[in-house]
Amino acid sequence: MKPEPRLNMVTLGVADVENARRFYETGLGWKASPASQGNIVFFQLGAMVLALYPREALAEDADVDAEGQGFSGITLAYNVRAKEEVAAFLSVAEAAGGKIVKRAEAVFWGGQSGYFADLDGHLWEVAWNPHFALNERGEVVLP
Amino acid sequence: MKPEPRLNMVTLGVADVENARRFYETGLGWKASPASQGNIVFFQLGAMVLALYPREALAEDADVDAEGQGFSGITLAYNVRAKEEVAAFLSVAEAAGGKIVKRAEAVFWGGQSGYFADLDGHLWEVAWNPHFALNERGEVVLP
Repeated sequence: MKPEPRLNMVTLGVADVENARRFYETGLGWKASPASQGNIVFFQLGAMVLALYPREALAEDADVDAEGQGFSGITLAYNVRAKEEVAAFLSVAEAAGGKIVKRAEAVFWGGQSGYFADLDGHLWEVAWNPHFALNERGEVVLP
Repeated sequence: MKPEPRLNMVTLGVADVENARRFYETGLGWKASPASQGNIVFFQLGAMVLALYPREALAEDADVDAEGQGFSGITLAYNVRAKEEVAAFLSVAEAAGGKIVKRAEAVFWGGQSGYFADLDGHLWEVAWNPHFALNERGEVVLP
């Protein structure tokens, strides 16, 4: 079997599913799917899916210990079409209860970038990258 | 500004970029983009991008402390088209040097699922979900 290059879903372990849902749904304005049920919430983010699930249950599902702290070693990124949108998105995230971890600033690779943490500390980079154009669906298509 | 629902890139912090690249490129058979350079490697995974970057540098980019251990609180998922592909993908990942964290098994929601950890412990679920059909591009489209 040769795995096709894809990633279908990112699941964020959260302390409180309703709070986390509110951050993404009311705060960022992303609509939860009717497929959401009980303690799992799904968002269709373009071609992929973001899920929110209790952190303990997620660890249990993977058969790993739920203990963990500090830097997760993973970041999620949202690419914007215009430089000004980096700060604008960070403001939306902050108003929703997120924490701005790094304000929008020019970065060495020629773009503009900032970071926010959601209610559970999951890190999102918001980036404007002049080298990676977005297609009409808002997707980064690499060379 | 109303953020469009999307997630463009997932970046995995890794101990050794070349080793991590070998796992995904030679092991899983995913082709690194020519946009990769120096210590950052990009893979086009369908509509989104997976990046590998040194863990310390990733923390520095986000302006957070690189210390962290245990469960990251995030899982990535790859959905397959047929039940048998769950175990098959796990075998490919294991042969590539990954660790099977949970063998393929039937799960309470009616599908089949297992988990592997890549060389840096990032958790991937491989799932067959009869409720979430994949479209022709291998994308999960929620109700």
